[in-house]
Amino acid sequence: MDYRKIKDDDDHGVASDIENLKGKSHAVAASNAAVATLGGGSSDRTNWKRKSVVTFALTVLTSSQAILIVWSKRAGKYEYSVTTANFLVETLKCAISLLALSRIWRNEGVNDDNRLSTTFEEVKVYPIPAALYLFKNLLQYYIFAYVDAPGYQILKNLNIISTGVLYRIILKKKLSEIQWAAFILLCCGCTTAQLNSNSDRVLQTSLPGWVMAIVMALLSGFAGVYTEAIIKKRPSRNINVQNFYLYVFGMIFNAVAIVIQDFDAVANKGFFHGYSLITVLMILNHALSGIAVSMVMKYADNIVKVYSTSVAMLLTAVVSVFLFNFHLSLAFFLGSTVVSISVYLHSLGKLR
Amino acid sequence: MDYRKIKDDDDHGVASDIENLKGKSHAVAASNAAVATLGGGSSDRTNWKRKSVVTFALTVLTSSQAILIVWSKRAGKYEYSVTTANFLVETLKCAISLLALSRIWRNEGVNDDNRLSTTFEEVKVYPIPAALYLFKNLLQYYIFAYVDAPGYQILKNLNIISTGVLYRIILKKKLSEIQWAAFILLCCGCTTAQLNSNSDRVLQTSLPGWVMAIVMALLSGFAGVYTEAIIKKRPSRNINVQNFYLYVFGMIFNAVAIVIQDFDAVANKGFFHGYSLITVLMILNHALSGIAVSMVMKYADNIVKVYSTSVAMLLTAVVSVFLFNFHLSLAFFLGSTVVSISVYLHSLGKLR
Repeated sequence: MDYRKIKDDDDHGVASDIENLKGKSHAVAASNAAVATLGGGSSDRTNWKRKSVVTFALTVLTSSQAILIVWSKRAGKYEYSVTTANFLVETLKCAISLLALSRIWRNEGVNDDNRLSTTFEEVKVYPIPAALYLFKNLLQYYIFAYVDAPGYQILKNLNIISTGVLYRIILKKKLSEIQWAAFILLCCGCTTAQLNSNSDRVLQTSLPGWVMAIVMALLSGFAGVYTEAIIKKRPSRNINVQNFYLYVFGMIFNAVAIVIQDFDAVANKGFFHGYSLITVLMILNHALSGIAVSMVMKYADNIVKVYSTSVAMLLTAVVSVFLFNFHLSLAFFLGSTVVSISVYLHSLGKLR
Repeated sequence: MDYRKIKDDDDHGVASDIENLKGKSHAVAASNAAVATLGGGSSDRTNWKRKSVVTFALTVLTSSQAILIVWSKRAGKYEYSVTTANFLVETLKCAISLLALSRIWRNEGVNDDNRLSTTFEEVKVYPIPAALYLFKNLLQYYIFAYVDAPGYQILKNLNIISTGVLYRIILKKKLSEIQWAAFILLCCGCTTAQLNSNSDRVLQTSLPGWVMAIVMALLSGFAGVYTEAIIKKRPSRNINVQNFYLYVFGMIFNAVAIVIQDFDAVANKGFFHGYSLITVLMILNHALSGIAVSMVMKYADNIVKVYSTSVAMLLTAVVSVFLFNFHLSLAFFLGSTVVSISVYLHSLGKLR
């Protein structure tokens, strides 16, 4: 509903962006029709390449993220405050976006698409994803009264379904029957791969636990889909500008989280208490994966994001076999097979 | 290879059967074209109805079979000799086929399609499925040196894959990409639904254990697909005659099994030692499901058979919740969802 409102308020913005794009292609067409055709083909190829690169980057970064988490837990170092780390992640992302922008300004000059100055109309939607994530992270503290941590990991797979449903409803993009089937399989496959002897406890989750898990899945799915809506709304706007505004509000809302959740700890022990090399690496990794997520939203979509992070989850387990002597379970093999078939069916569903 | 040989030897038989069918439809067409069209439509409907009825019967009989097995184990009565029971199952199936035939002879008279007399050409292939099953059952005694019983239950799901592959190779029927994906999902879903805390032990199976499991899956798949080839080879031949010959050889080979495996026990304690009401019900149920399998081979195919028995496995678990206070695991829910999507994808793949 919110998205529709923005859309109604600001259709002119999108329209003028599309006008700009059309204007550009007309100019090329006028100058040389043959080059235009060639340009169209190579631009398709460029788009496909860019999409592949950002998806691959997201997959690798997400896998290494999980490995860093396992490593930090093994090292027994987890006593830093998570909210300060999140704040630093947003700050780093902001800095990287500004750095990228300054390079672009130097090379291409400042224009309407890459200038940082903005209107209230453009910027007013940017706090919403950050607010949704803050609310979701706060809920996370309460859900552990109803579900244990491994159970929560399993319930988090509901994100997959909520993202698919909200993607359909909010962005109004259709998935084929096969792609829907593939999406449910992705959720089942990921959950199966995570099964262990204690997983059945999750079935004993009480009603408030289920409600919170579903609300959290919806918040997380909504934040993802809404971010895509914001970024796609102005296709010609430079992604680094869009990221800058996303991350500025991320910083603000995470500062709020520090005050709400960790004020005493930070005031008494200091902002960087408990930080180690692994913590720094994790912050760096989270920042880069965050940027990769934005890029996937810009050049691909939330569905690609969900597939990418799911495959990353499986890659992590396989890499952990070599790094930490993990044993892969039969459930993992079955889940991975189901996820692989889901990926295959998704692409098959797209072709038809 | 064997099937090809029969095909070459006996192509004339199939050809004349098809000639017969063509002759019949020509006659109808000559007498009244409109009735022929109508007849075609209602025969399509009849075929579909017949296919549905036999598939439903197989599903229900297979479910109740598993429930009878659980019941008999709970009652602690399992000390009868399995080979004598198998022999009685074949005998009962033979008797039922003859009974059905005698009714048909009374109503329709004896003709080329329903007469019991046969040629060596027709009957020579009938011992093969029975011999394959005997060989598979003998192997079953040896595989338990390498795998425990729950592990064997899990490895039995390889049957699904072997049936699909042999169905493609021997019957030369194509499955679409989606149907292949669905078939692998069926195997993963069934296995997932059966997962329990000890399932991972199956991954420690040694090489000879795996080889035997794969050989058994191939034998069982080959027997099923070969039976379909035999039955489908003469479409106009009455199914009860075809069943009679299948079951006569079943009786013979099971008599051999009694001698090989249980000769001492039967000689000392008697043929019916340890039989109870449940044993009788199980024999009755096995006989009826065996006939249902033949009917599915005649009017549908091995793929339908595999889906039907897989869905039956899930139904059994659900019914057992009410009958025996079973608890359904998270793995069961995930596996059932994957199986349901597999059924959906299979029908979706057929429509395209």
